[in-house]
Amino acid sequence: MNLRIPGPIPVPEDILETMSNPMINHRGSEFKDILYRTTEGLKTVFGTKAPVYILTGSGTGAMETVIVNTLSKGDKVLSISIGTFGERFGEIAKIYGADVVYLKCLPGTAVAVDQIRNCLDEHPGIKAVLVTHNETSTGVANDLEEISNVVKKEYENKLLLVDGVSSVASLPTYMDLWECDVISTASQKGWMLPPGLAFISFSDFAINAYKKSDMPKFYFDIGQYEKYFKMGQTPWTPAVSLMFALDLALEQILKEGIENVYSRHKEIGQFTRNQVRRIGFSIFPEEKVASNTVTAVNVPDGRQSGELIAFMKTNYDVVLAAGQGELKEKIFRIGHMGKTTRNDIKPVIEGLSKYIS
Amino acid sequence: MNLRIPGPIPVPEDILETMSNPMINHRGSEFKDILYRTTEGLKTVFGTKAPVYILTGSGTGAMETVIVNTLSKGDKVLSISIGTFGERFGEIAKIYGADVVYLKCLPGTAVAVDQIRNCLDEHPGIKAVLVTHNETSTGVANDLEEISNVVKKEYENKLLLVDGVSSVASLPTYMDLWECDVISTASQKGWMLPPGLAFISFSDFAINAYKKSDMPKFYFDIGQYEKYFKMGQTPWTPAVSLMFALDLALEQILKEGIENVYSRHKEIGQFTRNQVRRIGFSIFPEEKVASNTVTAVNVPDGRQSGELIAFMKTNYDVVLAAGQGELKEKIFRIGHMGKTTRNDIKPVIEGLSKYIS
Repeated sequence: MNLRIPGPIPVPEDILETMSNPMINHRGSEFKDILYRTTEGLKTVFGTKAPVYILTGSGTGAMETVIVNTLSKGDKVLSISIGTFGERFGEIAKIYGADVVYLKCLPGTAVAVDQIRNCLDEHPGIKAVLVTHNETSTGVANDLEEISNVVKKEYENKLLLVDGVSSVASLPTYMDLWECDVISTASQKGWMLPPGLAFISFSDFAINAYKKSDMPKFYFDIGQYEKYFKMGQTPWTPAVSLMFALDLALEQILKEGIENVYSRHKEIGQFTRNQVRRIGFSIFPEEKVASNTVTAVNVPDGRQSGELIAFMKTNYDVVLAAGQGELKEKIFRIGHMGKTTRNDIKPVIEGLSKYIS
Repeated sequence: MNLRIPGPIPVPEDILETMSNPMINHRGSEFKDILYRTTEGLKTVFGTKAPVYILTGSGTGAMETVIVNTLSKGDKVLSISIGTFGERFGEIAKIYGADVVYLKCLPGTAVAVDQIRNCLDEHPGIKAVLVTHNETSTGVANDLEEISNVVKKEYENKLLLVDGVSSVASLPTYMDLWECDVISTASQKGWMLPPGLAFISFSDFAINAYKKSDMPKFYFDIGQYEKYFKMGQTPWTPAVSLMFALDLALEQILKEGIENVYSRHKEIGQFTRNQVRRIGFSIFPEEKVASNTVTAVNVPDGRQSGELIAFMKTNYDVVLAAGQGELKEKIFRIGHMGKTTRNDIKPVIEGLSKYIS
């Protein structure tokens, strides 16, 4: 099976095999070594000196962790949405009692910094800006550096809270350089891991916000993670097998060099879009905002994504993803995170060219 | 390594190996089959016709799921604690705004039903009773059937909320027969799985409470789990590799027969306690309340658990657990969940007899 959805992604065989290692004591020295080593590796990938915590949960759990640890009930926050994951981020904030100002961009576009300026000027009480780095639902990447230059340099005391679920370890992300306050991500993306782990980092400014935050939390309380980290542990029993896999995946990523990982994603993204256009499809977003982790493609007029996806599965054993929400039948998506090569994409193109002909 | 802590437990090799299976689409038909098959298996083990949901998270996450889905802010609840996990259950309820009445029993004892009656009579407004079925911190099992007979038969409209993290799939647990409203459990115990998954079931009465619950929730919102279950999915990306393992573990448990699994745990628990006593140690709890999943043993006078545990690790490659909280140095614990045999326990006894001699 050629699994080409935007996560879970195919996991290299040697990483899968580490998960068959026998269980260990999650409060023992062997686990401590793994926790400390992987945390250092994660810091390198995040581009940060700030603490990074490892949670057992999905990307959505990580997004909730961002919200409940930095915000208080009634806090005014700007929720920038360029697709379903952006909407989810704002929804979580609202459920926990934040006063959410919504900036909803057209599907297929990235947010323009003038839109952000307008919102921040109109609502000077905004304490935090929630933004999706890479929106897999529409195949669009926001320009996080540009956004940060506005939120952190043109304004004061705003928390920049980033959903990096599908960007970190795939797209250039420099937490400290870009002054991001929280970045959260999940294992089943560019990390080349199965789902089940999430990683989250908090700047000093975010940790100050944590100290004042009154949103209820227990499982996702990063104060507990910090306390147990000092003992070489996680507060709650972690997904030990996935920690073995993380250990090896980080070794491979760091050996390759994170900048090389970014280049590889850029190359395969560009290749995929070029090939898709060459055989007569059109890309859903504009080229300049198209994501290098997932390509969103317009379904030809008069046809539906469900039919295309079934054709590709039946005839080519290629698994693609439909659109989400209103875009469900209008677009389909090709994932190319992790160690995707041209040889993984070529059969997809071959199948799609048969479908369209 | 002979891993004898009360979870994670040693996982059979064939179950570990399933985790090396390639990733699949978590929104595809193959996953749907696994989800439906494992959910049916879980229902059999829980002894329920009610829905059982599979979460990615630890046992603590499952405990939070119990609280935030059934309670509302200001609800009066009785928190029965016979150890650190009982305390944690009450603490989560308090953090989310419940009005918690504490019934704290002496460490090493089980709760007496008269204590429960007294609390419920004194506080007629109590809406829910939180109880730990099996307290691994002290090696004590509460008599859940007896507790249910009081809470559900002598009183009306009380929710019986059970932390079954270390009991389900090890100790007799009959959710429907014993009228439990919610039972939560986690994979790294009698299920013979690595940590990372949690399972939770809600009675009709608990689902009615869910509909009125105003505690904030998103990741753990069981309404989302129910909605996606109908499509053969989990709402958030699940730990797919652990689902492969769950599928095989349940196949093995059901093939053996859950009553046989209970008998096996009873036998090995009894064997362990007898052997421990035979070589001159004393068991921390009284025999009649001692758990068949973990044996808590008194450290000989004038010595400390840390020293004993280091001795066992260094000389016998046996990994034991210390006590928790105030009991840290006073007791040590021997786990015997899952497929523990006499041959796993014998080297432990051999080492302990050398230590004490």
